[in-house]
Amino acid sequence: MLLSVLYIIGITAEAMTGALSAGRRKMDWFGVMLVASAAAIGGGTVRDIVLGHYPLTWIENPQFLGITCLAGVLTTGLAKWVIKLKGLFIRLDALGLVAFSIIGTKVALDMGLHPSICMVSALLTGVFGGLLRDLICRQTPLVLHQELYASVALVASALYLLLLEFAIDGVTATVVTLIVGYLMRMAAVRFKWRLPSFNLEHEGSLH
Amino acid sequence: MLLSVLYIIGITAEAMTGALSAGRRKMDWFGVMLVASAAAIGGGTVRDIVLGHYPLTWIENPQFLGITCLAGVLTTGLAKWVIKLKGLFIRLDALGLVAFSIIGTKVALDMGLHPSICMVSALLTGVFGGLLRDLICRQTPLVLHQELYASVALVASALYLLLLEFAIDGVTATVVTLIVGYLMRMAAVRFKWRLPSFNLEHEGSLH
Amino acid sequence: MLLSVLYIIGITAEAMTGALSAGRRKMDWFGVMLVASAAAIGGGTVRDIVLGHYPLTWIENPQFLGITCLAGVLTTGLAKWVIKLKGLFIRLDALGLVAFSIIGTKVALDMGLHPSICMVSALLTGVFGGLLRDLICRQTPLVLHQELYASVALVASALYLLLLEFAIDGVTATVVTLIVGYLMRMAAVRFKWRLPSFNLEHEGSLH
Repeated sequence: MLLSVLYIIGITAEAMTGALSAGRRKMDWFGVMLVASAAAIGGGTVRDIVLGHYPLTWIENPQFLGITCLAGVLTTGLAKWVIKLKGLFIRLDALGLVAFSIIGTKVALDMGLHPSICMVSALLTGVFGGLLRDLICRQTPLVLHQELYASVALVASALYLLLLEFAIDGVTATVVTLIVGYLMRMAAVRFKWRLPSFNLEHEGSLH
Repeated sequence: MLLSVLYIIGITAEAMTGALSAGRRKMDWFGVMLVASAAAIGGGTVRDIVLGHYPLTWIENPQFLGITCLAGVLTTGLAKWVIKLKGLFIRLDALGLVAFSIIGTKVALDMGLHPSICMVSALLTGVFGGLLRDLICRQTPLVLHQELYASVALVASALYLLLLEFAIDGVTATVVTLIVGYLMRMAAVRFKWRLPSFNLEHEGSLH
Repeated sequence: MLLSVLYIIGITAEAMTGALSAGRRKMDWFGVMLVASAAAIGGGTVRDIVLGHYPLTWIENPQFLGITCLAGVLTTGLAKWVIKLKGLFIRLDALGLVAFSIIGTKVALDMGLHPSICMVSALLTGVFGGLLRDLICRQTPLVLHQELYASVALVASALYLLLLEFAIDGVTATVVTLIVGYLMRMAAVRFKWRLPSFNLEHEGSLH
């Protein structure tokens, strides 16, 4: 129930950031809805396809697709407000990221998969929406550069698995993971925490 | 039967436009066959993967893959003629788009899916081939800018569903949808109808 | 057994070339692991999804994913050595390509698919890892330009199928295919054999 509410907040926030990316590429309304939907539910789609977890969430519940398309189109009219509310969106995006990670972990767990695959499932759910958005809009994928984005998905997933392992009930595990993951992401944004990067410019190539 | 003929015309025309895109990127014959096949049968492939509709059409019927590879390679020799026949190709592409949309709608309908998902299925079938072609060739996806391309797929799918709903037989529904969809696409090309676009340049970013 | 060893050599070598591509884009460690894994096991993943062959190899055997992530991260520390050992990597990559092609052929064969689809399966396994790597790193896909890369996958697959057809036992067929495919790839690199390319610059467009 809590997760459902957070899921809907998460896909709405991601759809709106997707619509802004489409706007920077001067796409038409269809492009806006496509990029909004890819950003919001693309991660879960890739996860379900990779795990063979059919039918996909949004095919069973088409209303989620309706939400992302609507959020995308509304953003074209509200762009100035959305950009002004940048701080709020960073918070919603952080909440959504952790909610997506918990949902991804649960899907793989319910399929009886190995804990490391549950973490990959969290990663696909949390991160691949943004990756698809950036591929369609031909931007260098932000998740490969940004402050601890993927790391938050992995840590949240590991923490959630660990709490369940210690026989903590699901609701408590969800709430604790949400708080820890949210704080970690917000701290990473504020203090510009980053993973070490690997810079190999002007070097010879293997090809 | 009618749809099968139109399907083969559609994949041939799309394969030839794919080959031209590959040629603009100076790809070798393998690249030409890959882009031709992605443009022609990539949309149906994405649809079947998303719907979990296995086996894929071209895996059950490898001759379709043969047609797209052959059409791609022939185009390398006939490029000048193909480019001169631009008007014919726009017509064939319009017919193919509507045929793909009807086929996509039928696949989802036969799986008992919600009408809105049938329309998404039409969209994936009709539009994603061109999207994959442009991603591989690193062009800004045309379908996100072009005259009512995706809209034609959606309108054709909705019309087809509506006709079936009113107990019109399948052949009549197919013919009526083909005519209306074809005329809508050709009118959009001629009069440069476009969806409103969302232009957000030089604005602040959420990231 | 022989194929398993070659598979592990192949994914390690591909993961390291993937990591170098990520380094040229200044990605962080997560990006390095993502591109390394995409390059190494992305081809098999695309093959299994297209064939509907679940569960995916690395989901059943998460240790393969561990190998590619580890190889990726180690490469960030060993980049200078890896680049110096260019000649060795070209050899390992050639072996890996042929091993991937044989594995892809066997997977489709075991599913009872048509020989032409077995060859496509070999192609997807051998070539799509590099294609995904280049899409994520926003490079023009090398496999669409490089010396007989895809052709080696197709020839190796056809040869392997032919040998089995003539009732040659599996091990002999594997060894013969490995030797012929390896020599073909190395000769193509040395003598710069290429497929004819299709160059269509400054021409009119269909769109």
